[in-house]
Formats: sequence, C-alpha cells, structure tokens
Amino acid sequence: MGHTRAHMDDRIHEHAEVLVDWSARIEDGDDVILSVSEGAHDLAVAVAQKVGERGANLLATYGSDEVSRAYLQAHDGEFEAGDHELAMVEAADVYLSLGGGRNTSATADVPGDVRQAYATATTGLREARMDTDWVSTVHPTRSLAQQAGMAYEEYQQFVYDAVLRDWEALADEMANMKELLDEGSEVRLVGPNTDLTMSIESRTAVNSAASVAYDSHNLPSGEVFTAPYATEGEVHFDVPMTLRGKRVTDVTLTFADGKVVDYSAGQNEAVVGEILDTDDGARQLGELGIGMNRGIDRFTDNILFDEKMGDTVHLAVGRAYDACLPEGESGNDSAVHVDMITDVSEDTHMEIDGEVVQRNGRFRWEDGFEE
Amino acid sequence: MGHTRAHMDDRIHEHAEVLVDWSARIEDGDDVILSVSEGAHDLAVAVAQKVGERGANLLATYGSDEVSRAYLQAHDGEFEAGDHELAMVEAADVYLSLGGGRNTSATADVPGDVRQAYATATTGLREARMDTDWVSTVHPTRSLAQQAGMAYEEYQQFVYDAVLRDWEALADEMANMKELLDEGSEVRLVGPNTDLTMSIESRTAVNSAASVAYDSHNLPSGEVFTAPYATEGEVHFDVPMTLRGKRVTDVTLTFADGKVVDYSAGQNEAVVGEILDTDDGARQLGELGIGMNRGIDRFTDNILFDEKMGDTVHLAVGRAYDACLPEGESGNDSAVHVDMITDVSEDTHMEIDGEVVQRNGRFRWEDGFEE
Repeated sequence: MGHTRAHMDDRIHEHAEVLVDWSARIEDGDDVILSVSEGAHDLAVAVAQKVGERGANLLATYGSDEVSRAYLQAHDGEFEAGDHELAMVEAADVYLSLGGGRNTSATADVPGDVRQAYATATTGLREARMDTDWVSTVHPTRSLAQQAGMAYEEYQQFVYDAVLRDWEALADEMANMKELLDEGSEVRLVGPNTDLTMSIESRTAVNSAASVAYDSHNLPSGEVFTAPYATEGEVHFDVPMTLRGKRVTDVTLTFADGKVVDYSAGQNEAVVGEILDTDDGARQLGELGIGMNRGIDRFTDNILFDEKMGDTVHLAVGRAYDACLPEGESGNDSAVHVDMITDVSEDTHMEIDGEVVQRNGRFRWEDGFEE
Repeated sequence: MGHTRAHMDDRIHEHAEVLVDWSARIEDGDDVILSVSEGAHDLAVAVAQKVGERGANLLATYGSDEVSRAYLQAHDGEFEAGDHELAMVEAADVYLSLGGGRNTSATADVPGDVRQAYATATTGLREARMDTDWVSTVHPTRSLAQQAGMAYEEYQQFVYDAVLRDWEALADEMANMKELLDEGSEVRLVGPNTDLTMSIESRTAVNSAASVAYDSHNLPSGEVFTAPYATEGEVHFDVPMTLRGKRVTDVTLTFADGKVVDYSAGQNEAVVGEILDTDDGARQLGELGIGMNRGIDRFTDNILFDEKMGDTVHLAVGRAYDACLPEGESGNDSAVHVDMITDVSEDTHMEIDGEVVQRNGRFRWEDGFEE
C-alpha cells in the first residue's frame, strides 16, 4: 500500500478516499461495481486500492463512450437489457461511477431515437442501480478541462477544490439550511429582475452532502434542495448554460398560479420554449436548490459543479424528487428536469416566512450577515 | 456502420469479425461480457460494433492489470468472490477476453501467496466462465511487441497473420490430423536427440480451430491435440521458453513407464526440476499438440502463439484436458500444465502405428510429402 501511493498525485488518492469512505461508506464484504470511463484510469487505480483496504469485492466495468457509440450505431434498435448486467447490478451493494472521458462529444452522432430506445429498454437497469448505494464522480481529464474552458492543471485544481472538502463540517452547516426550509412555509427570492415566492409547506429538504448517508449521490455535492410549488412572480437566471447543445443566456421566467406564463432569454429563447412545452409539469418548478460548496469558485458549464457553487441558487422546471415529498405523495411530474442558476452574491436576498435567511451570499448564521 | 469503419485499421475490424462470428458464434439476444485490457480499446470498439450488428446484449468490463494490482496489494488476503460478479458470469452466454495491456509486468510485485489466495477464492468464477462460450484473444499492443522483441507495426502484422486465417479451410485440414490421431494407437516422434513413443489408444483429439463450435477457445488457435500416456524414450525441445520468469533452453526429457526419469536443460535446468517435482502428475505427459497455423512464422515467447505455429509439435507435462478422454474417465492430473515445443520442420518425422504422417513439416496429405 505504501508502494502504490508513492508516485501518484496525492489528490487522486484523497479523492478516492472521500469517494469510498465518506460518499459510498464501503465496508468489508460489500459487492462493489466500479464503472471506469476512458480517461479515469488513475482514479480507478486509487479507488481499487481503497476498496481493497476495506475488504470489499471489486468488479470494474468499462464505461467507454466510444464502445457505447459503436454498439448503439450498429444495433437495429430493438434493444433489450442484458440479463447478465441486470443480475450484476441487482446483486451489487455499491455502484461507483467514475466519469471523465476523452471527448465529451464522443456519442454526438448517435441519433436521438436510438438513445431513447436504448434508455427505454434499460429502465430496469437504471432503477436497479438507484437501489444500490450509488455515487457518481468525475476524474479531471483534458476533455473536461476543455469543456470548462480551462487549462488542464487549472481544471484539476478546480475539481479537487470542489471534491476535497471537510464534508462533515459542510454537512453540519447545510443542516442549518435544511432546518429552516423544513420548518418554513414560504420562500421569497429577491434580486435584480427577481421577486419570486414559492410554497414549501409540508415539503422536506435534502441535505445533499455527497454521501449515501445523506441520500446524496454526487461527488462533489454541497447543496440543500426541496420541492417548491404554488410559485408566483418573476425570476432572472444570470448564469449562462448549455441546454440541448445550445448556449442559453439571461433566462427570465414569470409565474402565476404555480405555472410559467411568460419567458424570455438573451440567446436561444426557442430552446426554453421547447423545454416548457414538453408537458404540463415542465411549466412548474420541481426544485429549489441552494448551492453551498464554496470550493467551487466559478461556472464551468457542467451542472454537476455549477449548481453546487456557493452563493448561488438554482431552480428546476419539471420533475420533483420524491425525497422532498410527504410519504406517499407525488410531486410535480414531467419528462424533464432542467436546472437554471442565479448568482446570489450581490444585491439579492432570500426570505423564509418573511425572515431574511441569506443576503448577498451570507447566511444568517455567518459572520457578516446583515438582516 | 459505414462511419464507424471509415478511419480505423481494417485489420482491427476483421479481427473483431473473426472473434464474434467464427470464434464465439454470437447471435441475436446473447448476453455478452467483453473484458477489455488497458491497451485493447480499439479492438473493443470494433467488437462492440459487431456485437451490436448481431443484436446481442453487451456489457464491457475493465480488465486492467494496474487496477487488479492496486486491489490485490491493498486487501488483507481474505478474499471472496463477489456475488455480483458471479451472478453476471452465470447469466452470460459469451465471455470475450481482449488481452493486450500496457506492461506485461504490471502485477510483478504482487506476492505469490496473495495471487494464490485470490485465485482460490475465485475458483467458482473461473468455472462459471468456462461454462460460457468463452474466447480469449489479444490486441497487439506495444507492450506485447516488446515482449516478442519486435517493432510495433511488425508485431501488429504478426498478430493479424496469425488471426486473420481462412479458419474454415484450416479446420478442414486439421480434421485430417484429428482423424489419424483418433484412429491411431501409438505415436512415435523421431528427430535430432528425439525418439519418443506414446500411446493414444482410446483418446480423442481436439481440432482446435479457434471456435467454440470446435471446443476451441483461443484466437488464434490452429493445433490438434490429444492426451497421450505410457510414454517411452527421449525428446528434445529446441524452442526456448520463459518458465516462471526464467529463460529455459534445450530441454531434454527421458521417459520410462510413462514417467520422466531424467531431464536436462541448457539454461535454468533447476526450473525444469521444480516443475517436475510439483506432484506425481507433473512427471507424466498431459498433452501432445501438433501446431498447424502457418500464419505464425516465428516464436515470440508467448505460448498462445508459439504452440500453434505450423511445423511444430509440443508436449505438456501435467494436467490432461477432459475433452481428450473417454466419457467419465479422468486423465493425468496435476497442478501444472507446462508446454514445451520442438521444431519439426527439418530432420524429423512423426509416425502413427508405424505409418509416417508428417515428415520435415509436410503432412501426408500435402504436396511434397515424402513417405
């Protein structure tokens, strides 16, 4: 074990340790699937070491986009889930997904209907995966650095700053936010071109602390989210994003009786319209999320990181997460769940039941908070 | 499919086609496991395409030696087979193993007892794999070229010459040899420092034509083998080999009453002694194989290729294959099976029941054969 660590970037080993111990809580005898993207080899080696140290049973799968593309392109489209894959996932305790390919566009030329047919045929596989203690993370590759518009070493540091947190301390801090949301009835967000109210009565917030112990399955994470409804007013999203392959900027949504009644965007407004027209639920909010990971210090056009950034708030139109709903109740339903982000670090505040809980990025329990 | 093939070495696609269609006989709906070594990505892409074309269900696993090393080194040694891996293999119809790593010594520092403990704990996994239509092949990597002492492009051509055969024609030709061995009672091999007789009475030869349809699981293959016994005389192996990490040359074995009674070697004679002392069965022959793949034109110190080379004969001390034995009978048993090769292209002939069947590399059904 000493040898193994000698000549690899220590941050990779620390990433593996957070993933195995904090996020997935892997224990002796666990049956672990480790899905390895084309560019994630080094992280896979470090994770394998940690899985070995914990005495768990390792099975590595190859999550190659180029292999998937070749398979999908060649198939006649009458897909079925393999019994062998279903049996594997159903027998697994833990599913670790190491993203980080060599080309984020590696499957760009697979027709949408083929993807859809495969996704439909393998619904059972995804459901079985969700029944494991699953965690998704990414290894910083040159491809992801390029997507983020960053140099390779700059991007590595960006990822490790986001991942290598004191998660226990952050979880404790986020518990404050969860408590406020759980006890509150109405959230109001006020800022430039924004004055929005949402009901959160009887909804439960998730403290998404990057661990299965918190029902949180992404590493990094660092947000608290709930499922709002009865939304009224206007909200402006000043963070640009890529939706359906297109750059979308300055989205404004206007709500009445819980539904979007008007919208605009600086660029590619039509994409926003397409999304809102998907189905009934696409015009209602499915999520209110408060980003609390201050290790993430910039937007990289990757929702896994962007929505967790400290001093941001995101709202999603579409599907709500069951974890936020009262037992047995189903929330907003839709085929889409599209997150949009607003920077709340300046000229912005959030109220719960009339009490200011965050102003200009400072929470009420922090130094420098102004009522 | 047109797109996919456009810019990849055609030989890789041909290799994939032989593997999927000739060797593994993959059909619509088959559950296929594709184990991909670190250096075998391009072949994996080509195989995925073929598997997709056949309408089979693909699950790729990552056969990384570096991942294995990290896991094995870190584990306390109390291994167990994962239920998830066992469930996966037991539900699979086909198991394709694509060898070709980046360092043939990648696990060199894993202690022997750790390997042994892992192998023992995962016996059930290996047995389940043997119950599938499994095929092992290799993608030509720089690491394997180095092991063979060849330039990269030279080695690629070497591998494709061995793999891209007219297998149907070779299988037909090998059927001649199988028939002679099945009908014969005694084989005599005569050459420089060699005059050896073996009984093959009531034994069945395997026509190893690189296809599960022939009970043959390596690609390339191209040998006919049986399980001899009651060996008498002397045999000299002029092809060098690496045994237990050591170069062993010019082995001579002397048999009496079916057992090795004397041995010598040019280099590292002690390794031969160690092998013969493993157990009782290690002093008896487990295999007589006739190499008939003339696409393999040189020795590369890789038994997968060497023993299949045309104009060679190999003998193995140790375990015999069940496929060669009468139903219900068990052949020579041993913990080892070590192949040794002799070049029969010159000054050598093989007799079956007194009739010459091969002389100086020519078989009796070939032009140029001299009785």
